[in-house]
Amino acid sequence: MKRIALAAAILAATAAVPASAQQGPKPEAEIRYRQSVMNVTGRAMGPMGAMAQGKAPFNAAVAQKNSALVETMLGLPWDSFGPGTDKGAPTRADLKVWKETAKFKQAAEAAQKAAANLAAVAKTGDEGKFKAAFGELGKACSSCHDDYQLKQPRS
Amino acid sequence: MKRIALAAAILAATAAVPASAQQGPKPEAEIRYRQSVMNVTGRAMGPMGAMAQGKAPFNAAVAQKNSALVETMLGLPWDSFGPGTDKGAPTRADLKVWKETAKFKQAAEAAQKAAANLAAVAKTGDEGKFKAAFGELGKACSSCHDDYQLKQPRS
Repeated sequence: MKRIALAAAILAATAAVPASAQQGPKPEAEIRYRQSVMNVTGRAMGPMGAMAQGKAPFNAAVAQKNSALVETMLGLPWDSFGPGTDKGAPTRADLKVWKETAKFKQAAEAAQKAAANLAAVAKTGDEGKFKAAFGELGKACSSCHDDYQLKQPRS
Repeated sequence: MKRIALAAAILAATAAVPASAQQGPKPEAEIRYRQSVMNVTGRAMGPMGAMAQGKAPFNAAVAQKNSALVETMLGLPWDSFGPGTDKGAPTRADLKVWKETAKFKQAAEAAQKAAANLAAVAKTGDEGKFKAAFGELGKACSSCHDDYQLKQPRS
C-alpha cells in the first residue's frame, strides 16, 4: 500500500509539470517560463534597488538573500529563447534575439556575471561595494533590455 | 560622470521592478508573482519526476540542482497570498486559501519542509533516498493542490 501511495504521489507531482519540460519546448510554455523567471528576478531586485538608492536602510541579510536569488534566476531562462520560441504567446522579446544569437548570448552572460559578482559582494556585507555591484548589474540588465526587450508585448 | 552613469543604471534597474514591490501588494502583481514562482517550481520538478519514475537515469547533479531550486522557490510565494489578493486577475487559488488561513499555512509549511528534506537528501547522491524524498514532496504538493487549487482559473 505504501509503495502504491508513493507511486501515485510521484505521478501526481509529475502530472503538474508542463508536457514541454518532458517532451521538448512548446513555444507558449517556454515564453511563460522565461517571463516567470524574469518576474521572480524583478521582485528580488526591488528591495536591493531601494537600498542602492538610499530609499531603504542597507540590510546585509536582505542583500544576500535577494542577490543569491537573482543569481539563481539568471541561470535559468536562456535555453527558453531557443529556435521556434520567438512566437506562440504575447512576448516582449524582440525578434533580434533570434537574429543576433551570439550578441544576445553575450548580453545574457554579462548579466549572469554581474549577478554572480553581486551575490559574492553581498556576502561580505560591505554597503559601498554592494551599491557599486548592484549598479553594475543594473547596467547589464538595462543594456540587454534596451537591445532585446520591446516596450509592448507582441503576439 | 561615472557616478551619474551608475545612478542612472540603478534607477533603470529599479524602474523595471513592479510598483507593487515598493508600495505594497497590488493583487494582480501578487497573483502573477505566485504563478511565476509555481511555474518555475513546476519546471524544476520535471526532471526529478522523470528520474523518480525511472523514465530518466538518476543523475545526482540534476537532482541536487533542481531540488535546491524547488527549496528556494517554495520559500517565496506565501506572502503573496495575503489579504486582498484573492482576486484581481485569473487565478486557480481556491477562496478557501483566505478562509482557512491556518490550515493553508500548515500545508505550505509541510511542502517547504518536504522540499528542504529533498534538497538535503539530494546532496547525499543516494538514489533510493532521493526517490522516497521526492515522493514525499509530491504528496505534500498534491495535498495542498487538492485542497486549495481549482481545476480551472476563476476571474
